[in-house]
Amino acid sequence: MDHFNYQNGELHCEDVPLARISEDVGTPAYVYSTATLLHHYDAVAKAFAEVRPIICYSIKSCANLSICRLLRERGAGFDVVSGGELYRALAADGDPANIVFAGVGKTDAEIHQAIDARIGWFNIESEAELENLIAIARLRGASVNAALRVNPDVDPKTHRYTSTGKKESKFGVDLERARRVFNDYGRQDAVRLTGIHLHIGSPVNSVEPYVSAITKTLGLIDALRGDGFAIDTLDIGGGFGAHYKASEAPPAVRYAEAIVPLLRGRGLKIILEPGRSIAANAGILLTRVLYLKKSGERDFLIVDAGMNDLIRPALYEAYHFIWPVAPAAGFVPAQRGEGVSMPGLRLMDVVGPVCESGDFLAKDRMLPPMQRGDLVAVFTAGAYGMVMASHYNTRPNPPEILVDGNQYRVVRRRETYEDLLAAERE
Amino acid sequence: MDHFNYQNGELHCEDVPLARISEDVGTPAYVYSTATLLHHYDAVAKAFAEVRPIICYSIKSCANLSICRLLRERGAGFDVVSGGELYRALAADGDPANIVFAGVGKTDAEIHQAIDARIGWFNIESEAELENLIAIARLRGASVNAALRVNPDVDPKTHRYTSTGKKESKFGVDLERARRVFNDYGRQDAVRLTGIHLHIGSPVNSVEPYVSAITKTLGLIDALRGDGFAIDTLDIGGGFGAHYKASEAPPAVRYAEAIVPLLRGRGLKIILEPGRSIAANAGILLTRVLYLKKSGERDFLIVDAGMNDLIRPALYEAYHFIWPVAPAAGFVPAQRGEGVSMPGLRLMDVVGPVCESGDFLAKDRMLPPMQRGDLVAVFTAGAYGMVMASHYNTRPNPPEILVDGNQYRVVRRRETYEDLLAAERE
Repeated sequence: MDHFNYQNGELHCEDVPLARISEDVGTPAYVYSTATLLHHYDAVAKAFAEVRPIICYSIKSCANLSICRLLRERGAGFDVVSGGELYRALAADGDPANIVFAGVGKTDAEIHQAIDARIGWFNIESEAELENLIAIARLRGASVNAALRVNPDVDPKTHRYTSTGKKESKFGVDLERARRVFNDYGRQDAVRLTGIHLHIGSPVNSVEPYVSAITKTLGLIDALRGDGFAIDTLDIGGGFGAHYKASEAPPAVRYAEAIVPLLRGRGLKIILEPGRSIAANAGILLTRVLYLKKSGERDFLIVDAGMNDLIRPALYEAYHFIWPVAPAAGFVPAQRGEGVSMPGLRLMDVVGPVCESGDFLAKDRMLPPMQRGDLVAVFTAGAYGMVMASHYNTRPNPPEILVDGNQYRVVRRRETYEDLLAAERE
Repeated sequence: MDHFNYQNGELHCEDVPLARISEDVGTPAYVYSTATLLHHYDAVAKAFAEVRPIICYSIKSCANLSICRLLRERGAGFDVVSGGELYRALAADGDPANIVFAGVGKTDAEIHQAIDARIGWFNIESEAELENLIAIARLRGASVNAALRVNPDVDPKTHRYTSTGKKESKFGVDLERARRVFNDYGRQDAVRLTGIHLHIGSPVNSVEPYVSAITKTLGLIDALRGDGFAIDTLDIGGGFGAHYKASEAPPAVRYAEAIVPLLRGRGLKIILEPGRSIAANAGILLTRVLYLKKSGERDFLIVDAGMNDLIRPALYEAYHFIWPVAPAAGFVPAQRGEGVSMPGLRLMDVVGPVCESGDFLAKDRMLPPMQRGDLVAVFTAGAYGMVMASHYNTRPNPPEILVDGNQYRVVRRRETYEDLLAAERE
């Protein structure tokens, strides 16, 4: 569900025509919908209300400061995975008590930064990290809360790069080893090990992997409590899906229907870490057709956004629906996604200006007639879009625009060439 | 060939111990060797001297301003693929007459910028682009030089993302169509179409694809000259290899031995666009071990550099040799690369701190014993390393250090958290 709709044949974000935004800020540009962000946040909050979760928005999915602020004002805490993300969370006035810090490679500097900020929980990924955290906390005379991240060894059936809860992953510890970790480290005060964290991957478009992972984890919690450990927190991570190819992501309420009954009456504080499910459908990448080209038998639509702006197609073989902002008459799609079919479409590759063959946004895609200068929307680009942008080919990063009703604001300005060289000037 | 060597058991860049640089600037950091950059530049210049080439360093491979300046002082022109790279070339005091501008998606703004700068050649990738360039040049009352990029349809046998000279690629036009392009557009003055450009991919570790591509292209040039077109320039692109897995890249002289005889007495100005072959072996990514971890049966070395710093392993399945800067006694490698074998190595995955399974620098790698705090070098990271860095997980970009003999300079400072938020502040 999102608030990008064709009105009178022209794509709008909420009540703002995208053409108007492009006139103002140029292309390429990321455009986000406030109503869509809030809709998906609220859907999670409402679906899981019974267990009164702390909803820690996963900053890594879409990190813009204004979007973090918007969600914080709605009640969100933050899931951060680096000192930079912690810095963002605090810059967005995040409540430190509702910040969880995950990640397999926390540096000493980041740990000090997080202790200084008095964050809610450290999510612990290994014995070595826990030992280091204990050492630093003792040195500081601090006492911090931590959740041990476990690998429930379920297959989330997603891309191998974003599958994170299998046994042979760099993340977390096996369920069997988790008990040993508690026995070895669970009885000291510098790091109060009172939570369990899990995160199985993203996007996970079915509820079964969650049910399986949470059921296994609750078994662990029972065992740990039997061993005398006071476990009061369960962080079930994120990974809820978004609509890329069709309406493939279950709504939040479907996840909750399966998950909430498992958590009822367990005496656990529940943490959720949604990111993609909030941001993905709330953003598009707006780009412009530069050239049409035929090479051999293949047709290319060359646009002004490249792999440096959106790397998901090249890196994950990700599908993004792509369609003109103002399609020729008769080409406004009734729905969006892989299934769109109508007479007059043509098979094309959508590629960017970057000098390598990996620079594509779509391959073998049926598209309506287009010409130089046409605006094109790359949908479901809100998550893992701008946050993964690079300066490859010395291309400045695009601006980010946040729409709210019939208003919009530039929430990140377009970079200049000089911005890109600033750190190299002597 | 490079100037990274173990001296008394400790890795040096030229005469500077890498440990000293890490004490100064921290990790992760890119470290480049001036002598290695110049060695590879000089090798190309010497090998091809007979045809007096213009050597246009490919900025996209390693864009740092100080490295561009270094090579320009040695005589290099520049191969640029964007307005940003043109800005860099000029900032490095590049001679506009020795700048070629390639790329399938040149925007009008970039074309104006290049006309203003009076660059040497536009490399033309399609009829649509040529028409646009003619229109803009006419509007400006300008006359510019252009080379038509052709697809010689040879297989460079490299990664599909960096293979660029096959027929069904977004780059260039087929040889057959090239004659039509000249017939249609080769007789006007706004864009003087007097050159042919080709670029088959990178890295290309054998000379045969070049011989095949150049031979086909010379046939085209003969035909065009027969049609009455004055072709005076042949840009044979780049793509020469570098040593990643072993000493797999032919030296420049091997390429030249095969290529120069083809070009002799042809009355053509020759342009070369080396990038990777100059920069790749001249840079390493210096990183530090944060944690060692066992997960299931798998051993992980968690370091402080991630896929945001070096995306080649995740994106191209690229191999980079990785070794400690100060190995335990007996573990200094006699040579580097896939073939290194000695008793006592252990199978490990080398991974970064980024929160996804795609964040790895090496998989299933035999490595010597290491511990927390050890410095590690990721070799052959000079090309397509820093230029592809992103801020994923809000991770600041690492600094770049240029070593020269027993001296070194920070040629790009480490970014701060605030740098990453600056464009988002209102």
